[in-house]
Amino acid sequence: MTEPRYDVIAIGNAIVDVMAPCTDDLIEELDLNKGGMTLVDEDGAKRLYDAMGPAREISGGSAANTLAGLSAMGAQCAFIGQVADDQLGEVFAHDIRAVGIDFDTPARAGQPSTARCLIFVTPDAQRTMNTFLGASQFLPPETLDAEAVAAAKILYLEGYLWDPEEPRAAMRRAIEAARAAGRKVAFTLSEVFVIDRHGDDFRALIEDGLIDILFANHTELAALTGEDDFEAGLAALAPKVPTLVVTRSADGAVAMANGERAEVAAEPIDEVVDTTGAGDLFAAGFLFGHVREESLELSLRRGAIAAAEIISHYGARPEADLKALMAAKLG
Amino acid sequence: MTEPRYDVIAIGNAIVDVMAPCTDDLIEELDLNKGGMTLVDEDGAKRLYDAMGPAREISGGSAANTLAGLSAMGAQCAFIGQVADDQLGEVFAHDIRAVGIDFDTPARAGQPSTARCLIFVTPDAQRTMNTFLGASQFLPPETLDAEAVAAAKILYLEGYLWDPEEPRAAMRRAIEAARAAGRKVAFTLSEVFVIDRHGDDFRALIEDGLIDILFANHTELAALTGEDDFEAGLAALAPKVPTLVVTRSADGAVAMANGERAEVAAEPIDEVVDTTGAGDLFAAGFLFGHVREESLELSLRRGAIAAAEIISHYGARPEADLKALMAAKLG
Repeated sequence: MTEPRYDVIAIGNAIVDVMAPCTDDLIEELDLNKGGMTLVDEDGAKRLYDAMGPAREISGGSAANTLAGLSAMGAQCAFIGQVADDQLGEVFAHDIRAVGIDFDTPARAGQPSTARCLIFVTPDAQRTMNTFLGASQFLPPETLDAEAVAAAKILYLEGYLWDPEEPRAAMRRAIEAARAAGRKVAFTLSEVFVIDRHGDDFRALIEDGLIDILFANHTELAALTGEDDFEAGLAALAPKVPTLVVTRSADGAVAMANGERAEVAAEPIDEVVDTTGAGDLFAAGFLFGHVREESLELSLRRGAIAAAEIISHYGARPEADLKALMAAKLG
Repeated sequence: MTEPRYDVIAIGNAIVDVMAPCTDDLIEELDLNKGGMTLVDEDGAKRLYDAMGPAREISGGSAANTLAGLSAMGAQCAFIGQVADDQLGEVFAHDIRAVGIDFDTPARAGQPSTARCLIFVTPDAQRTMNTFLGASQFLPPETLDAEAVAAAKILYLEGYLWDPEEPRAAMRRAIEAARAAGRKVAFTLSEVFVIDRHGDDFRALIEDGLIDILFANHTELAALTGEDDFEAGLAALAPKVPTLVVTRSADGAVAMANGERAEVAAEPIDEVVDTTGAGDLFAAGFLFGHVREESLELSLRRGAIAAAEIISHYGARPEADLKALMAAKLG
């Protein structure tokens, strides 16, 4: 087995976030799924964009955000995801490479355009996401760089991307490549609607021992296990995955691994501005600790610190120097 | 003379700003003109973008920023400027219409793409701008909507756009239309390099009595008048324009009109984050007072308040509710 070149390689949606503040009245008027992620087609995206106030564009995508956090902490990362050969595709590629992440998936010619996520941020800092998947859903499995996957300590997969067929096939192929190389597979459940549609797949992956590290929030845990009670959900799932990490928004997070359990409170911050990316950055912090073989508790602390940074400003990519922030907070 | 439909109509660059924080070392390494605006071609823009950190995209353009401020205060505005029919063009058009500004210039097919301004923001909050003018420089004079120009109390022109030939011709035509309708013409000198290239044009416009309201900062005043001494510059220029407004960064601003003189200090703020758009928003505040026939002093105060809002965050479009902010500050 060769020495791994990357700490983490991820497959995820290659998305540019289009973010604007909005009122709760507008959420109601547009009949949006507040706090959730909803897939929209190009017409739906146009309708919502027309109703949106002046926006700013910031690269996003769940797994890509996680890598941006990992890279900011000092990890070596690579990203696999599909953009179109348009201006938003250039923006996405620029922003991910600018933080030192390898990104070699060739841009896709023609329609549809690069994925966009229209994010309405209400005064309570909740983000309501409406995603036009565009080119992102056409990640060709046959072009998957299995060598790169085999060269990373951890393969990180985004549940959102399990929905479209091509990326799902690419991810299955990547899991095989990672297992064959003796690497770990980490998976984030992303959203309840994904579990509603693909829960059987996820449970099968888990039963087959193909997931080493599983990320979920408390509602996703309930959806996957069928247990409404948080502790019952943990008890049902923990024996089946080597490392389980469950976030609970303002109530912190829990990790369980090999019978050990650790918890962390949410990191206190002055003002929550925009919760977009909180889960993604929590995963970044935890994975950073994990690849360095730190304790469960310290890994959770890193997750909480990274999540706190991201929700203190607009956008789901870190703005502060995460490496310095971790050093200041953890000594 | 029909009742004006707009308070202000502006002709300006239709630009999307691409903004990223950077170190002073990078400014030096890239040999950038710190604090200034430099025109770059597509290759130059690519080279700088490659060297730039992860960025955010926010609509910009000097006169468009001014209108966004005016509109936020409650003025009726229209914008004339050229985008390409690409994604950044859609972003620009969306953002300006989303604040209630009429924008009817048809997008231009084919190359070049929509204008971009690569803005490097150093830790001292200075912005260093590198503009690829793209489609913006091909505003066809023959399509100028003279009826819309005649329907605005004030025609506002951006000096930056005097450089390319087509927009210059469009602006000359607009000045004629405004004068013929008995409207006022306001002009901002924008940058010393524009004065270096077109100072004779500007001086001729002023001598011919075609400029009613002139905006400059102290370095532009010196460049236009040839007077290094601030007071000497004011004394040379003030008799030639009905209303002269000169900003002096942290030292506030001066306005002179019909022998009257007023001054305002810079509005105190907690932290200067990014000075992009300070002059644009100063002009917005002043023009808002001017169209309402407020005193020189109150108009200057509005300018200082609007400028203070814009430099307290990233980006050159207002984020706070300027109407409420003005009411709170001015009673």
